[in-house]
Parts: sequence; structure tokens; C-alpha cells
Amino acid sequence: MNTRTGKVIVNQTITADGYSAGLDQTEEHPFGDDGGDGWGSSLHSWMFDAGEENRAEVDQINAASAVIMGRNMFGPVRGEWDRQWNGWWGDNPPFHAPVFVLTNHAREPQPMEGGTTYHFVTDGIESALKQARAAAGDGDVSIHGGATTINQYLAAGLVDELRLHIVPITLGAGVRVFDGVPPRKLEQVTARAASTVLHVTYRVLA
Amino acid sequence: MNTRTGKVIVNQTITADGYSAGLDQTEEHPFGDDGGDGWGSSLHSWMFDAGEENRAEVDQINAASAVIMGRNMFGPVRGEWDRQWNGWWGDNPPFHAPVFVLTNHAREPQPMEGGTTYHFVTDGIESALKQARAAAGDGDVSIHGGATTINQYLAAGLVDELRLHIVPITLGAGVRVFDGVPPRKLEQVTARAASTVLHVTYRVLA
Repeated sequence: MNTRTGKVIVNQTITADGYSAGLDQTEEHPFGDDGGDGWGSSLHSWMFDAGEENRAEVDQINAASAVIMGRNMFGPVRGEWDRQWNGWWGDNPPFHAPVFVLTNHAREPQPMEGGTTYHFVTDGIESALKQARAAAGDGDVSIHGGATTINQYLAAGLVDELRLHIVPITLGAGVRVFDGVPPRKLEQVTARAASTVLHVTYRVLA
Repeated sequence: MNTRTGKVIVNQTITADGYSAGLDQTEEHPFGDDGGDGWGSSLHSWMFDAGEENRAEVDQINAASAVIMGRNMFGPVRGEWDRQWNGWWGDNPPFHAPVFVLTNHAREPQPMEGGTTYHFVTDGIESALKQARAAAGDGDVSIHGGATTINQYLAAGLVDELRLHIVPITLGAGVRVFDGVPPRKLEQVTARAASTVLHVTYRVLA
């Protein structure tokens, strides 16, 4: 009998002052005032401009068997789904797995190319996690963000592992991981410095 | 002619959510609600319980040729110096160098054993830095904290290097490095993971 179950992993790129996005997020600037082009260029250059150096961490992010994200991370459309918005990631999203999008507005599942299907969950974070776990089987569930969604899962004690990718800029304002999360004890599992990012993995103990 | 001048270095131990002390700091609990005994035990165990593993970083902190700290870090005495308070560190403090304490209340210099002398600076952070640089000669000036003092120097653009020692707990509230500091570009110079702390050094570029 195989009783192994996967972990619930958070993956988030943050600034040295803990922000995952700046103020004034819009469709044109999904990361708001992010110290760059508003598309998170300075936040994510470790992934896009230094992919080889950070291959292990990128592969780990892409290895999730199911993904959870907030509606703000999925896209800028608010309220009813009155536009055919299928995410920021084009026809063949990088997830290649079921993605559970937290929303207040019901919508039919949206299959995409390459194995990604967007499922829309209207009954809260615990339901989304239950569905994601069922879809992931023995694999890991990755809570991809944004920070508001991550903080809800952290506050509810539902996260096993927190993988932060800390980039050398500060924003001074915006959306921050850990905001509103009560004190937690962590265990530093691994940490690795690449040239433009610091990868750290914490186990959430209590 | 030797034109070399030392650097202005910040050294600060912070939680994974960026706090250097919790709420409700008092004389009995100088670090407030710090997730431990109020004396920062959980914040500073990397220094005191794992000294050998972190010898290089402790030595580096102690190598400063002059130190700057805020009055709240120096002690709990407020207003006029109506008590003979000579810091938290006993008769032979670990600095072995001149220490410039930011305060609004004048006081004569206080020599201690082992080469430490406390100087009290009433005319602001730039004056304290000028005096510390003069005292340090070619050596480095260390801004020891707390976060409120560090943030003033960061906001004024007076810091060359930021050495953060990130410990695996979160506090959820308190005094935080970077609060009120405008966006900064940093360069990640070095990073090293010990078993219970992550040491990262940033150069402050702009």
C-alpha cells in the first residue's frame, strides 16, 4: 500500500523587502510599480534571463502535479467572466497540469494545449486544495500565488513548504508575502545563491 | 597617498518576514514579542548557539572600526540620562571601538573596558556618520541597528553594504528593515546558508 502523498508547496519570487508585486497593478502592468516594466521583468529576470543558472529551481516549479492560483494572478478580468480570458500564458501554458483558479464567479473548465486545464473554484481555498490534491495524486501541489492567495494558505496552516526566490531590489510598497499571517516557526531546508537571486526553502513547522 | 576609505555597512538579523524585533519592546523584553524569551533568543541563536558555524559572520560584525546605533538599541532609558545606563553589554562590550549613539539628550562620552567608548550624538544621522568615519579612519563603519536607525540611513542613501542574517521564524508584526525606505537597486554580493540562518550581503547601488 502506497501511503505517500505529495506536499503543498508555495513558490514565490519576492524582493529583498518581501514584495511580490508593487502598487497599481493593471492589465498593462500586472506587477504594478515593480521597479521595471510593470511585467515583473526585474522580479523574474532570474527565470527568463538566467534560466540555465537557475534550471533546478525552474524545473522544480514546473514539476507540480497540480497548481493553485488566485484570480488576480490568472488575469485582470473582474466580476463575471464577460471576456474570454484564458490566462497570461498563451495557448500552451507552462503548467502542463490542472490549474485551480480561486474566483467568486463560476465558469466551466477551460482546457488548454499541453495538458493544462483551468478549473474555476468558487467555494474557497480548502475546496481548491482538496481538488488539487485529488488531481495531483502522489505528486505535489504548488500554490503559485500571488501573495494574497499564499497568505491565506499560510494563515490557515495548509502549507508544507515555502520556496522563496529573493531578488536584489526593494519596492517599498505593494503586495507582500506573510502580511496578515500569524507568527510561524520554519525550518530552513535548503538555500542556494545564484548570481542574481537567492533561493531558500523553508518547511513550515507550526 | 592612501585614498582608501572604509565602507558603511549595515548588519541586521531579521526574521523571514523582515522584522528585527516584535511589538511591545520593554526593558524586560528588549526585542518585544520575538517568538522566544523577549531577549531575541530565537533571533540570535545563530550567533550564540551556533557560533562556530557562523564564526566568519560574527567576526565580520566585530571587525568594525566604529559603530553607530540608535538609542533604543543602546537601552530602554528615555528622555534625560537620569540613570547611569551604559548599554546592555556589561563593562566590557563586544565592540572594542567607538560607538556613536543617536539621542536627543546630550551626555559626556562614556569609556568602557576593552576599547569601547560610547559617544552620544544629538545632531542627527549625518553628523553621527561623519564622526564615525573620522574615528574609523580606513576601517569600516557598522550601523548596528535597530531597524529604525538603519532605515533612516538607507532612506538617506548613506549605506554601502547591507548584511542581512535571515532566521527561519516569522513574527507577523514589529519593527521592520526597509519600512519607509524608497525603492532601491541592490547587488547580491555574497550569500551563505548556515543550518539555522541565511547570510546575504547586498551592495546598495541606487
